[in-house]
Amino acid sequence: MKKGKLFGVGVGPGDKELITVKAIKILNNADIVFVPVMKNGDKAAFNIVEEYIKDKYIVECVMPMCRNLEKLESNYNLIADTIERELKKSKNVAFITLGDPTIYSTYIHIDSIISQRGYETEIIPAVTSFCAAAAKLNIPLCIRNEPLIIIPASNVKLKNYLNLNGNKVIMKAGSLVGDVIDILKKESMANKSYIIERCGMENEKIYNNIDKVEKNEEYFSIIIIKDN
Amino acid sequence: MKKGKLFGVGVGPGDKELITVKAIKILNNADIVFVPVMKNGDKAAFNIVEEYIKDKYIVECVMPMCRNLEKLESNYNLIADTIERELKKSKNVAFITLGDPTIYSTYIHIDSIISQRGYETEIIPAVTSFCAAAAKLNIPLCIRNEPLIIIPASNVKLKNYLNLNGNKVIMKAGSLVGDVIDILKKESMANKSYIIERCGMENEKIYNNIDKVEKNEEYFSIIIIKDN
Repeated sequence: MKKGKLFGVGVGPGDKELITVKAIKILNNADIVFVPVMKNGDKAAFNIVEEYIKDKYIVECVMPMCRNLEKLESNYNLIADTIERELKKSKNVAFITLGDPTIYSTYIHIDSIISQRGYETEIIPAVTSFCAAAAKLNIPLCIRNEPLIIIPASNVKLKNYLNLNGNKVIMKAGSLVGDVIDILKKESMANKSYIIERCGMENEKIYNNIDKVEKNEEYFSIIIIKDN
Repeated sequence: MKKGKLFGVGVGPGDKELITVKAIKILNNADIVFVPVMKNGDKAAFNIVEEYIKDKYIVECVMPMCRNLEKLESNYNLIADTIERELKKSKNVAFITLGDPTIYSTYIHIDSIISQRGYETEIIPAVTSFCAAAAKLNIPLCIRNEPLIIIPASNVKLKNYLNLNGNKVIMKAGSLVGDVIDILKKESMANKSYIIERCGMENEKIYNNIDKVEKNEEYFSIIIIKDN
């Protein structure tokens, strides 16, 4: 195994207090912290950990968000190259990521590349956005024998999954939030749907009635549909 | 709204460092901490927070685990009665629960009863067992457009859900772990299944090959099945 180690540090859904003790410890021990930045300049993950990484060397990297897989892969490789330069110097690198690293994170692709290049990687799990959203709504995501189906808004079979028995979480609604709302209305699910935008962050919005949702394409939108 | 407040505090999956800053803060501020105890005396949630609640008044309550709904409901009401006595004295009560409170927790039923009785309740979300298990295995639970299906081993339609496209997490395998393994073998899913027992706790066991699983009915078992 080569020398430096990469830590994928989940920092939770947005509320600064929903970070784990382990994430803080890993950040304290890191030599360098990689911070994902969205194209619009949003640094949601950085905002959560800002106070813990004041004395760290920080590298900002703009995360690719396109749907072209080839272009994505080439972008991930570029970021991995930058990380590998530090690992080669035996540095411990922490890469922060919003929510949990194993749930639809961009980080996980970089982890996989670095791991294939022969370096040790470790994932630090975190509170997911959907658990934080359910907690804020004060509703269970699943009880007893109920299934829970997590699905991105962009899945072409979304409607099929919505019609299965079980509670559902629709992730990454973003620009598709209007389309999803239309589907929920057509499938008579509007009255058992909840939408939370920017859960635990500034400008959080909670809708118990999806008719009132402003179709503003908020990137951090979680939709929960309860079966019962 | 009546005076005392109930906090359902998720303490994470088992690793003591996977507790959130918020959970620790709520425990620090609580007057009384309710600690669930399993019938066999196991206090997994207590073990995580022991150091934070040394100076607190602790009430242990044995959690009902039977499948008789009526009996369960009556047991939940008994626990709620005990909690309500404290709330009536305007005490802040923290009820700790393993994993996240919105994912198959017993706590959520008590929250609902206390809430219906007119008290304020708040859920503190936490790292789920399945996120911790995936992190330990260093595999994503879902990427890109993949659905993720969470389902308890006891769901009678388990096999139907296992045959859907998407990655799956089978929860609460416990005494059913042998049956689930038989299903996974029959459905040719054995080679893409992982089992973690007691993730992040003492005696943790990880199986990348389910043929090697000892059918010991471990309560804290998570099964992850990857589609690709």
